[in-house]
Amino acid sequence: VARRLAPHLGSHTPVVICAKGIEQGTGRLMSEVVGEILPVRPRAVLSGPTFAAEVARGLPTAVTLASTDPELGRALVEAVGTRRFRPYLSDDPLGAEIGGAVKNVLAIACGIVAGLALGDNARAALITRGFAEMVRFGRGLGASEATLAGLSGLGDLVLTCTSPASRNYALGTALGRGESLTAYTSGRKSVAEGVATAGAVVRRAQALGIDMPIASAVDQIVNRGASIADTVEALLARPFKFEAADRPIG
Amino acid sequence: VARRLAPHLGSHTPVVICAKGIEQGTGRLMSEVVGEILPVRPRAVLSGPTFAAEVARGLPTAVTLASTDPELGRALVEAVGTRRFRPYLSDDPLGAEIGGAVKNVLAIACGIVAGLALGDNARAALITRGFAEMVRFGRGLGASEATLAGLSGLGDLVLTCTSPASRNYALGTALGRGESLTAYTSGRKSVAEGVATAGAVVRRAQALGIDMPIASAVDQIVNRGASIADTVEALLARPFKFEAADRPIG
Repeated sequence: VARRLAPHLGSHTPVVICAKGIEQGTGRLMSEVVGEILPVRPRAVLSGPTFAAEVARGLPTAVTLASTDPELGRALVEAVGTRRFRPYLSDDPLGAEIGGAVKNVLAIACGIVAGLALGDNARAALITRGFAEMVRFGRGLGASEATLAGLSGLGDLVLTCTSPASRNYALGTALGRGESLTAYTSGRKSVAEGVATAGAVVRRAQALGIDMPIASAVDQIVNRGASIADTVEALLARPFKFEAADRPIG
Repeated sequence: VARRLAPHLGSHTPVVICAKGIEQGTGRLMSEVVGEILPVRPRAVLSGPTFAAEVARGLPTAVTLASTDPELGRALVEAVGTRRFRPYLSDDPLGAEIGGAVKNVLAIACGIVAGLALGDNARAALITRGFAEMVRFGRGLGASEATLAGLSGLGDLVLTCTSPASRNYALGTALGRGESLTAYTSGRKSVAEGVATAGAVVRRAQALGIDMPIASAVDQIVNRGASIADTVEALLARPFKFEAADRPIG
C-alpha cells in the first residue's frame, strides 16, 4: 500500500500509521517499513483499543497518538480529536507499535485459555503476566514503559483479550476447543496476524535474551505443532518466581 | 476479627492478610489495622485475581504473596503454592493492598460504563486510564510500580472490571442502568466495598495532590449524588492530555 501511495504524496505530507503488526519475514515494525518506502515525510502512529464499529457509532474511544515530532503530534490531536474520540499524545511511536503487535500474540493465548474453559482467574493472570512480557520486550527494543502501560499497549491488550470479536482471540478459542489450525484457517480468507507475529516476536526476544514464556508457548503451538495440553502443563510446572524481577525464588 | 483472634495467636505466629479494602472512617489499610491489634507478628499479604469458586474447582490461579520478611515470603510460597495455585513473591505488601482496594472503585466505574452500554472500547480505555490512576496513587503512598502492574494490582483490576460476578461491577451496572444506590443496596445484605473505598481513596489522593479523575467521578456519583450523565460528559470534555505525563497539551 505504501509503495502505491508514494508517488501521490508530497514529501512533507505527514503519514499516520494505523496498521498494527510486524512484517513477515523481515520482522520489521510498520514505521520501519514506511520509513524505507516513504522517507523524509513526518510520521505518527495511531493505535489503541478501537473496535471500528463502536467508533463509527460514536461511542467513547481513547487512543494513543504518537510522534517524535511534537508539533505534528499536537496538530494531529487537534485535527482528529473529539469528545468521543480522545487521542492521548505520546512521543514514543516505537512503544505504540510494539504494544499493538505483541497484544495479538497474547490474545491467542487468552483465546486458548477460554477455549479450554480454564476460567476468569487464569485469563486475568495471563493478561497480567503477558503484560509483563510486553513491557520486558518493549524495554529491550527501547520503548518507554509508560507507552506500554497506555492505551496502545495495555488498553489494546485488555480489549483484544476479553472480546470474542477479536480475530486472534477467536483463533485461540478454536484451538483451545480442539480445532486444528489448518482446519480453522482453511475456512477463512484472513489469517490472524498473531500467528506470524508470534514467531517474529519470539525470535527478536531470544536475540535480546528476553524471557517471554507465554509468547513462546503461543509460537510453539501455532508455528511448531506443540500440543496445547503439554504446553499449558509445562507453563504451570515452572518454578515459583519473584513477581517484579521475573526470576525463580531461591 | 483480628481482635478476637489476638488472644489465641502466639506472638511469632505469622499472619497472612487476605482481606482487601480500606477501613471506613480512618482510611487505614488492612496491614495498618492488623499491625495495631497484632503487633510483633510477622505479616504477609495475599492478593490477586481469585474468584474463590474457580480456586475451589482447581482452575489455574496466580496471586501476589507479599511480605517485607523474605524468609516468611519464601516459606509461605512453598506452603500454599501448587501447580494450579501459583503465588508470585513480592516484598511490597503496601502495593499489594493498594491495588486490591483501588480496583474496587474502578470496578464501579466499569460497571457504570457497561450499564450505560458505552461499549468495549470505553471499558478498555477506562481500565487503562484507571490503572494509571492506581499507579499514581500507589507511588504517592510509597508502593512499587511493579507491584501495581502485577497480579494484585492490574490482574485483579482486569478480573473485577470484566466480570459481572464482581459485587462492585454489578453495583456500577445497576447504577448505569438507572437504578438508584438506595434501591440497589436496600435489597442486599452486603454493601459493595468500593463505595466506602472511593471516598477514602479520593480524600487521601487530594491530600497528596494526586489527580484521580475516574475515582473522583465514582465518589461524586456514589457518595455525593452527582448525575451519571453529567459526570460522564464532564470526563469526556476534559482537555486532551499527554499520555505519560498526565498533563494537558498545549
